[in-house]
Amino acid sequence: MTTKKITFSSQTVNYYFDASLDKLAELTNPDNTFIITDENVFAKHKRKFTNWRTIVLKAGEAYKVQATVDSVIDQLIELGADRKSCLVGVGGGVVTDITGYIASIYMRGIQVGFVPTTILAMVDASIGGKNGIDVGIYKNMVGLIRQPSFLLYDYSLLKSLPKEEWVNGFAEIIKHACIKDAAMFKLLEENKLTAFQKDKVLLNQLIQRNALLKSKVVQQDEFEQGDRKLLNFGHTLGHAIENSYELSHGQAVALGMVVAAALSAEYKKFKEVEKLVSMIQKYGLPAFAEFDAVKAMQVMQSDKKRVKGVIHYVLLEKIGKGVVTPLTPQQIEPIVKKLAQPSK
Amino acid sequence: MTTKKITFSSQTVNYYFDASLDKLAELTNPDNTFIITDENVFAKHKRKFTNWRTIVLKAGEAYKVQATVDSVIDQLIELGADRKSCLVGVGGGVVTDITGYIASIYMRGIQVGFVPTTILAMVDASIGGKNGIDVGIYKNMVGLIRQPSFLLYDYSLLKSLPKEEWVNGFAEIIKHACIKDAAMFKLLEENKLTAFQKDKVLLNQLIQRNALLKSKVVQQDEFEQGDRKLLNFGHTLGHAIENSYELSHGQAVALGMVVAAALSAEYKKFKEVEKLVSMIQKYGLPAFAEFDAVKAMQVMQSDKKRVKGVIHYVLLEKIGKGVVTPLTPQQIEPIVKKLAQPSK
Repeated sequence: MTTKKITFSSQTVNYYFDASLDKLAELTNPDNTFIITDENVFAKHKRKFTNWRTIVLKAGEAYKVQATVDSVIDQLIELGADRKSCLVGVGGGVVTDITGYIASIYMRGIQVGFVPTTILAMVDASIGGKNGIDVGIYKNMVGLIRQPSFLLYDYSLLKSLPKEEWVNGFAEIIKHACIKDAAMFKLLEENKLTAFQKDKVLLNQLIQRNALLKSKVVQQDEFEQGDRKLLNFGHTLGHAIENSYELSHGQAVALGMVVAAALSAEYKKFKEVEKLVSMIQKYGLPAFAEFDAVKAMQVMQSDKKRVKGVIHYVLLEKIGKGVVTPLTPQQIEPIVKKLAQPSK
Repeated sequence: MTTKKITFSSQTVNYYFDASLDKLAELTNPDNTFIITDENVFAKHKRKFTNWRTIVLKAGEAYKVQATVDSVIDQLIELGADRKSCLVGVGGGVVTDITGYIASIYMRGIQVGFVPTTILAMVDASIGGKNGIDVGIYKNMVGLIRQPSFLLYDYSLLKSLPKEEWVNGFAEIIKHACIKDAAMFKLLEENKLTAFQKDKVLLNQLIQRNALLKSKVVQQDEFEQGDRKLLNFGHTLGHAIENSYELSHGQAVALGMVVAAALSAEYKKFKEVEKLVSMIQKYGLPAFAEFDAVKAMQVMQSDKKRVKGVIHYVLLEKIGKGVVTPLTPQQIEPIVKKLAQPSK
């Protein structure tokens, strides 16, 4: 086990890498802790939840909504959760987002920790304190920024993770490499997905590298005034199409990264579009897909990241160097339209 | 107009006493500001809302619930509110609580200011950053602590305030005097309600004194680890009966203060129960009423202020000096039972 500490504005987060879920009993008071997980994780790791009071959610982004929050709050009241209670979200990004949100608002805020069970949650979703729920087609429209007390990484939970979920997580790993870490981009070029799946040492190094990369970006700009925006690389278009099509988050972000790369070629003289496309495809992600460009532009303009009239788009100057660039919808639209019709 | 500034952990709050609602146009960008008010305030002051985009809520505590939050969020999305938008809650405590809560969670937090229109909101509800909604019979079960950017006091809004709402607010003024300000207790003894209603100078002094008293208590203990708990004087029992009976918040708190005074006599040698009872009655509030003591004890033990087994009760050593005292339900129950049957 490796431990790290990173201090944010109002909370120090403890990271336990390559740890075991059993460690939870040391980190919290089991008598006043409530685990929140989803039915998939619960079914696959049932024995690990013995002795813990556990609230089991339906699985999937469709349930990252207010109705789920309402139901969990009713259950917490029923179970007698109080101000000293701790919530632990064990699951993917949907579970950690919703658990973090509920912990922020229940009795005006109680303690929370996360045990991410997917690559996506390990390297991205569970880190940085952003939490929240979707409202209609708008992702994370309601939520907060509030750091958890701890993050516990138990790689044995990945054993049951389907291949498409590994692929899903690697979209964010590629994103991190693009905006901040050219050396990691090389490492990803030199290896392939199965190597990380088979070699726990290699995997642990990659997860730590990504978790700490994201944590440090967030630490320097917790409330997203500047550098943290880089983490939205691929997400502006990604979020605009994710809920309207049958796309995983990783697939949507992959498509979004290609659009952002094309915009970077147009407005930042970025020369490595092909390299990024190859990388995305190597890790089993889509680089191109047909989608409704007009609708995507509309959703993009209602996204919470929009400030009247202008979209702060994350572009690349080169692999490893992201830059936030204000673009007008008029500058974005032609390229989105072109990429939305890959077959034509 | 008098202005004051008080700096909290992550926000400086600007206070504008004896100001005019028109000043709002200086404090916010009218093009990106959304007023939230209720149908009573809107009907009485319709002209003041001309030129402002206004969301009008149904009036009353019954609407301080998630369904209202859901509806306002849908309207904000529809109206194109973005991260730079400002919400302004114009109303009583229900409106400022719900506006503050929505501003905290919409797009992970946007700017908010309050224009309290009742005595209760002016001296208490709009101050201190606590916001939230009720869940079933549990008051403020869900919410946050987050300070507004400004508080604007326009006493002309009080013209339409019914007498019972004046009385309602004076419960919190009496509470402030009890826990922190023996001189104000004297001032209240020497005057009566109609004097404050008629004399704007006297009223402005009283409102400022109370707003600043509460603000300073909160400033020293924003996240309620210690002194801020004093502000719960009368509220432990008050909250436990308020939603179960046809009681105003002030009436519930008045009854709660008498119970707390009786507990203070029992456990703190408090000698001024009669003085407090007279004061409560002088300002038109009830000192005694019949209620279900068993149910009240149950709700009290589910209150979010409870930490397993013990209730942190605010007692008085003397008028002007409140103290937080941990009491067991067994210590509280006999006195609650006695006072719940005033006629026997």
